[in-house]
Amino acid sequence: METFFNETFKYLEENLMRTRTILNNVRSSRSAFSVALTNANTLTCTGPFRDDTFVRYSHVFINLGNGYDVSTGFFTAPRSGVYSLALTVYSDAGAPASSLAACVNLQVNNVVVAGPQERNQQDQEDSASIVIVVHLQAGDIVTVHLPIGCFLCDDKSHYNTFSGYLLYGTE
Amino acid sequence: METFFNETFKYLEENLMRTRTILNNVRSSRSAFSVALTNANTLTCTGPFRDDTFVRYSHVFINLGNGYDVSTGFFTAPRSGVYSLALTVYSDAGAPASSLAACVNLQVNNVVVAGPQERNQQDQEDSASIVIVVHLQAGDIVTVHLPIGCFLCDDKSHYNTFSGYLLYGTE
Amino acid sequence: METFFNETFKYLEENLMRTRTILNNVRSSRSAFSVALTNANTLTCTGPFRDDTFVRYSHVFINLGNGYDVSTGFFTAPRSGVYSLALTVYSDAGAPASSLAACVNLQVNNVVVAGPQERNQQDQEDSASIVIVVHLQAGDIVTVHLPIGCFLCDDKSHYNTFSGYLLYGTE
Repeated sequence: METFFNETFKYLEENLMRTRTILNNVRSSRSAFSVALTNANTLTCTGPFRDDTFVRYSHVFINLGNGYDVSTGFFTAPRSGVYSLALTVYSDAGAPASSLAACVNLQVNNVVVAGPQERNQQDQEDSASIVIVVHLQAGDIVTVHLPIGCFLCDDKSHYNTFSGYLLYGTE
Repeated sequence: METFFNETFKYLEENLMRTRTILNNVRSSRSAFSVALTNANTLTCTGPFRDDTFVRYSHVFINLGNGYDVSTGFFTAPRSGVYSLALTVYSDAGAPASSLAACVNLQVNNVVVAGPQERNQQDQEDSASIVIVVHLQAGDIVTVHLPIGCFLCDDKSHYNTFSGYLLYGTE
Repeated sequence: METFFNETFKYLEENLMRTRTILNNVRSSRSAFSVALTNANTLTCTGPFRDDTFVRYSHVFINLGNGYDVSTGFFTAPRSGVYSLALTVYSDAGAPASSLAACVNLQVNNVVVAGPQERNQQDQEDSASIVIVVHLQAGDIVTVHLPIGCFLCDDKSHYNTFSGYLLYGTE
């Protein structure tokens, strides 16, 4: 009787522990960042630059899991899984006749995945957004790349935002 | 033996109950709303108004958890957690030469968090979108604010939408 | 004693199994797709066509759960629940004076739910995005409809994207 009891207890306890591990894994699948270009009082533009560069968003709405690095503008996936990424760019040419070039590339490990852009001379100011879902490995780096000639303008109204979050962690 | 058995049973049962509580908490982390400005057959514009006002979206796609109040246009977070918020504005000046002003502010507790806008005279119609992720406390109020001079136009094609959902509940 | 022990064991095991079932249901609530119009090296346009048609996105970022059918462009909800849907359209008229018509409808079971569009003659190129949240039944079909006269242009920068994912499964 005692042996049977002990084995039954062991069986139940192991099952319970396994359930808790899975549950903790589900709960820990949390990573979310959302940032804006600047929090300046007056409209401030980034670019155009002579060389390709990366956009650094300095205003942080949320950085759960600390995947976003404000000093580089890079988001590093803290764990493998399915992520939703959203990007909005906005630019103001300053005057109706000036050329507008709100153009960036969203890159994963330096490969372009999407490129919202507004390039034209008919429109003084314009914005573009993109939402994609990708599978990222832990350590994958997501960046917003600003090609030569492109520029973004922002103030504390936050017209330029970059956001992402983990939808489903890969166990 | 009996004492040991009872304590073992108690230990397992308590562990199991705790697991269930956590799991129920994960499952109950559900809040999602998605609304459009109108469901009218013909293009209907809201604004411009002499005073600042809030936008009331009357067509409801979903209101899981009843956080959105159709009579005020306000979304009240039913529980604390990380929320994704998305907003698309669209306007039509009616004629190529007319001035366009599709401009709103997304506010949390009356503080601007993001402001998609399209203001220009070169473009007859235009739209802008924004997606951000923020941490909300239970009871926090999310509103779409229409500044003086701005206006939005919509019909049953739903060019103007306002959506949000809970990503991760704070336990 | 033995009867009591057996009943206690049975009670705990059943509770544990029920917990695991719920947990597995939470974990299996996974469906996500994200696609772009094309992966072509040069800007390639779809439309305008003489008849209404559906847009087929040929470049797949992710298709978790295989809800998206690349041969038809349709997304079929693999299970009932609350889904987030996002759509970005982009077009380039080719020349400043030409007419632009980046217009589509997002449909669920052939009913329009949202219609991002950019139609004008002042702007050579433009984009529009929309994000909505809807409840879908398993088997519901989500499509992107291209009305007569509308056209989309894309290349490997992926200006045109269509994405969706399950937020909360209905148990």
